Amino acid sequence: MTAHAARARALMAVALGESPADLVVRGGTVLNVFTAELIQGCDVAVKAGRIAYVGPDAGHVVGPDTEIVEANGQFVVPGLIDGHTHVLETRYSLAELLRYAVPGGTTTIITETGELATVLGRRAVDALLDALVDQPVKVFMTLPPLIGLAPFIEAHAPDLEAYERWLRHPRVLGLGEVYWGPLVRSDRRPLELVAATVAAERRAEGHSAGARGSRLIAYAAAGISSCHEPVTADEARERLRLGLYTMVREGEIRQDLAAMAPLWRDGTDLRRLVLVTDGQGPDRLLRLGYLDHCVRRAIELGLEPARAIQMVTLNVAEHFGRDRDLGAVAPGRCADLLLVPDLRDFRPTLVLSDGRVVARDGTLTVEPRQPSFPRHFYSTLKRPRIVRPADFAVPAPDGGPIRARAIELVTNLVTREEIIELRPVDGYLCADPKADLVKIASLDRGRRTDELFVGFLRGYGLRRGAVATSMTWDSQSVIVIGADDRDMALAACRLLDTQGGVSVCAGGALVAEFEARLGGLVSEAPLEEIASDLRTDRGYVRLRDAAMLGLTADSPSSVPRP
Amino acid sequence: MTAHAARARALMAVALGESPADLVVRGGTVLNVFTAELIQGCDVAVKAGRIAYVGPDAGHVVGPDTEIVEANGQFVVPGLIDGHTHVLETRYSLAELLRYAVPGGTTTIITETGELATVLGRRAVDALLDALVDQPVKVFMTLPPLIGLAPFIEAHAPDLEAYERWLRHPRVLGLGEVYWGPLVRSDRRPLELVAATVAAERRAEGHSAGARGSRLIAYAAAGISSCHEPVTADEARERLRLGLYTMVREGEIRQDLAAMAPLWRDGTDLRRLVLVTDGQGPDRLLRLGYLDHCVRRAIELGLEPARAIQMVTLNVAEHFGRDRDLGAVAPGRCADLLLVPDLRDFRPTLVLSDGRVVARDGTLTVEPRQPSFPRHFYSTLKRPRIVRPADFAVPAPDGGPIRARAIELVTNLVTREEIIELRPVDGYLCADPKADLVKIASLDRGRRTDELFVGFLRGYGLRRGAVATSMTWDSQSVIVIGADDRDMALAACRLLDTQGGVSVCAGGALVAEFEARLGGLVSEAPLEEIASDLRTDRGYVRLRDAAMLGLTADSPSSVPRP
Repeated sequence: MTAHAARARALMAVALGESPADLVVRGGTVLNVFTAELIQGCDVAVKAGRIAYVGPDAGHVVGPDTEIVEANGQFVVPGLIDGHTHVLETRYSLAELLRYAVPGGTTTIITETGELATVLGRRAVDALLDALVDQPVKVFMTLPPLIGLAPFIEAHAPDLEAYERWLRHPRVLGLGEVYWGPLVRSDRRPLELVAATVAAERRAEGHSAGARGSRLIAYAAAGISSCHEPVTADEARERLRLGLYTMVREGEIRQDLAAMAPLWRDGTDLRRLVLVTDGQGPDRLLRLGYLDHCVRRAIELGLEPARAIQMVTLNVAEHFGRDRDLGAVAPGRCADLLLVPDLRDFRPTLVLSDGRVVARDGTLTVEPRQPSFPRHFYSTLKRPRIVRPADFAVPAPDGGPIRARAIELVTNLVTREEIIELRPVDGYLCADPKADLVKIASLDRGRRTDELFVGFLRGYGLRRGAVATSMTWDSQSVIVIGADDRDMALAACRLLDTQGGVSVCAGGALVAEFEARLGGLVSEAPLEEIASDLRTDRGYVRLRDAAMLGLTADSPSSVPRP
Repeated sequence: MTAHAARARALMAVALGESPADLVVRGGTVLNVFTAELIQGCDVAVKAGRIAYVGPDAGHVVGPDTEIVEANGQFVVPGLIDGHTHVLETRYSLAELLRYAVPGGTTTIITETGELATVLGRRAVDALLDALVDQPVKVFMTLPPLIGLAPFIEAHAPDLEAYERWLRHPRVLGLGEVYWGPLVRSDRRPLELVAATVAAERRAEGHSAGARGSRLIAYAAAGISSCHEPVTADEARERLRLGLYTMVREGEIRQDLAAMAPLWRDGTDLRRLVLVTDGQGPDRLLRLGYLDHCVRRAIELGLEPARAIQMVTLNVAEHFGRDRDLGAVAPGRCADLLLVPDLRDFRPTLVLSDGRVVARDGTLTVEPRQPSFPRHFYSTLKRPRIVRPADFAVPAPDGGPIRARAIELVTNLVTREEIIELRPVDGYLCADPKADLVKIASLDRGRRTDELFVGFLRGYGLRRGAVATSMTWDSQSVIVIGADDRDMALAACRLLDTQGGVSVCAGGALVAEFEARLGGLVSEAPLEEIASDLRTDRGYVRLRDAAMLGLTADSPSSVPRP
């Protein structure tokens, strides 16, 4: 008999009272996500990690060794599923994520893998597939499309056959976020990747920030199945109408739930609306929680609890075609169960994953597995020679003042082109911190070349010194920002020494740093320590996107907020 | 470039206005099934059979050769999907079904295949896979589980490897209805079939008539994904809560919509409710229509049109994991589109399938393909020797009156055991038509044996003569019912001569018949002719289940209603 058949037989035997359950959760009020009903006085019986019975009385399945959990009228809710996040891409380890996310009720995580893969290529995918299994909860991944803004990313991507092989892996749910621009313009690799994903009956995740009308339609027509980038209710509605599973973010990068309230005030069918974190920062994870915070926030914003919970359970499971295993308290599903005293202040007292208690009263009760990555995953910053101040010098063309393109920082996430006028000094174009104009340089850190590009940045707020970081999106270049060429070289050198994180230098000395050696992206320190390192009295600095943030070197003892 | 990628590229090119559409439906009110909204002033552009654009203005995709269909404000609705029906199992051909079903807006049919397969085994599956393609609309199938009430059905079933091969076929959506009893009792083949289906990520269709509580839960836990058998709102709700896609029938066998109205009066989430025909009889198909009739009836019973249409489009497509191709007017989907002037009196004026006009104003405008079946599909009634009156004689045991088991016909669909007292006549137990007691015999018709079983039937209403039919569910035995052994033999012989259908004999002569030679189940005559043959002034007789119906031989020129 196959494993599937044997499991079915075992579950049926329990349901029929022919053999005892492993565990029974007794006397709860089950949130039925299919019908959006609350079913009072309901027992749930578990066998071999799956739900074997949900009904008014599981007395017939209780044997001498059956463990009984008294729900005492608490709500029994399916474990939450984060449908879009960034594990091992947001400064801390998977173990630390689980330690703080699981007690809030998250029992399934679906993560992007683009950042480590940009640094390490296909080895990252294989290593992650190994790292994500045998954890206290289920962690799935989407494959890194490696379709970047920089052409070199695509050049180093695995071939289509590797993707087709990975797409059959049980932990792979599809293709990670494919930026809309490259796909809509593509007649080759991005299209082939999406097509191979659709042909494999897996999901091609979208990223259509700013797209609308014909271009958004073209993107959907190509086979893209979701978007987690709407920031207004209108943008969300446009995506829902196209059949895209539309993911609303309430995490570190964006907090969009408040803007979405119009969606649940007019009877719109929301079966394709999903709540996600898109990654949670260390400080927010400690202070607010994880996906449980999204649920509390959505309910606070007027969404019915049953609907909010559908958006982090059944809707996500349906999107990824996993609703026969996940996302509901129903026969045959994984026994991922939460006991919650108050649906409106969603804080589980007990979290079961595959029928095992993994958290109780806000604390993880099992130890996440610390995966062991190859040694070279911790030394990913390559330069053929030492970086020197002269590398950041910008020789001026002959003549007087010149006009040049600069990057203007509009918000923490948005830049735009600005045309500036620069007056050469001794034959060089220089930073002008008094006018809030500094240099910004990008160093190729992975491909062992001397490539280095220097430009100008306005609006960053840096008055002296320099900051270098390897924690940059998409390109995974080292970014150095500085008011001073010598400090820029020093910060870059220090970062190359530590092999990742952030280095801040001023006056020829190191003044602050954060080490993140795994892929130059992740620290394996405890989350409390990371958050403390990154927290200052002037607030919280998101080092992941440090290159986009206004770090100043004014307070040499900390890494303050702009 | 793969076909998937090339198609995506072509759709994107149209959406972006880089190449012209084949066809544009202009100025309709699109029913958006994702959000359950009506979007006014909406154009739909089609390229190579798929939807490339849905939006306020498709002007940019109109080229010199683009065909324009003016919607003139009509509703644009996705083509309807019948999620559970019996093609080539309900007396008439697929061609005749399409002729009358498609003009009402049905553009996808998902059919069971159990009846022909019971007669012809795996050859039937292969022949159907060939017959269902290249039709004006899409016809998918579920595989015959061949799990019957009679053990011989299972003995002749294909092996698991054949199922696993078929499950990968693009026209196969899963495993057909698996009766709950055999599955719940099974530790072998039914379980393995369901498990193989689930492992292949296909659907194992259910049939849980009468099951509830623990047994229904066991059935769901085994991996069954639907049930089309609830007859009350409570039964439907119990199934919805278990996560089963719950199919409500409004067809020939059952008309259950009226009983379901409580479901849509209380805010229950109905995303897993589906409306199906479960097969439509010839007369009803001509008089009432097909799935369009279900939609009209549901709306008449108070369901919002958008919700009713979701139940025959998106909900079904989601159930079968085909929502990226079917069930919505959205980019990338098949251009299965209906123009409907009035949603509440749902009668399409135009039906497009894969972007092609297939019906207009109630008439099919294309010719269905008549598949050619092997010759032996038309001679499936095997007996090694002639049936004689003596075959139906029941010798009495010695002694006086005896008690015996009989079948009591309670309704057209339901029988129960009755214990009767019989007084032997000349050493035989005889029919007693005055007491509404006749003989009923089952002949093995496919396995070339002389097996024949004779019993007694009460409540059938036959006063003289006999009726023989090969159109019987599940067993596909020939059933003969008679007040007279000689007429029973005559009717059986005549049926064996004609190779299928119904024969009615009285007074030693043939008095009525219906020929159905394809598998002994289906007539390839025009539907009007079939309906006329089966219609009498006393109403409509369902010959498919003739053995369960009260045919009388009182009116020798017709086959009247009981």
